[in-house]
Amino acid sequence: MEMNSMGENGINDKYIIIVGCGKLGAHLAGLLFESGKSVVMVDMRPSAFGRLPDGFGGFMLEADATELDTLKKAGIENADVFVATTDDDNTNIMLTQIAKTIYGVKKVVARVYEPHRQKVYEEFELETICPMILSAEAFRDYIESDGGGE
Amino acid sequence: MEMNSMGENGINDKYIIIVGCGKLGAHLAGLLFESGKSVVMVDMRPSAFGRLPDGFGGFMLEADATELDTLKKAGIENADVFVATTDDDNTNIMLTQIAKTIYGVKKVVARVYEPHRQKVYEEFELETICPMILSAEAFRDYIESDGGGE
Repeated sequence: MEMNSMGENGINDKYIIIVGCGKLGAHLAGLLFESGKSVVMVDMRPSAFGRLPDGFGGFMLEADATELDTLKKAGIENADVFVATTDDDNTNIMLTQIAKTIYGVKKVVARVYEPHRQKVYEEFELETICPMILSAEAFRDYIESDGGGE
Repeated sequence: MEMNSMGENGINDKYIIIVGCGKLGAHLAGLLFESGKSVVMVDMRPSAFGRLPDGFGGFMLEADATELDTLKKAGIENADVFVATTDDDNTNIMLTQIAKTIYGVKKVVARVYEPHRQKVYEEFELETICPMILSAEAFRDYIESDGGGE
């Protein structure tokens, strides 16, 4: 993917906050930055930011996102998208609920590990992505496809 | 998804070996069994089989898949598909290579955690699925889609 030359105020620009700079969060931040988005990455572990890809030019905020002050510092009042990818399902759900209900962020999405909780999240009308479910479906689709054999 | 009534010898039947009954492997086994496939799950940890969904009617083989005898017991000589979803990338790659090159299994696919290794796997012409990459792309697609906001 080539760097998008769209400027910070480009028509396609979005202001995106990601909490949790694990492998998934860091890779996602890189993808979004590459496509011209403004990205703020929040993590309380200084070492976590080392996972961000080379060339990542978004913002990094070292702070505990479960403190409301942190979300304000991250600019949540102006955020178009809020993403929670910490390694704790409950934290992710709590954060996305706060982003949605208190700050009115239009798009919020959380990573969840436990699929049996996913139905609960749907009742809260929170968008969630479960890597395990997604992966199992990808395996199944590959297995059931015609291609792949030699 | 409804249970498929296709019998064990139905025209759509495939014989599938999965090694690694973690969350992903167990969920995948359930999906494949539901769609009428013959599934053999291999894991060396007896407790792991408890992750299989209720109603799973495939075979369970408690053994170390890195011993060649285990793969034979699992029926690898007749397998159409071989899937490795242990929690170790190297084990998954080794097993899929054995399935492909020694036993000539037509479709083999491995879960990998480390995307930077994925390119190496492609050189071996092994199909791999990286849950992290898949998930990051799903997040990005959701974020860049028009829907989702209210």
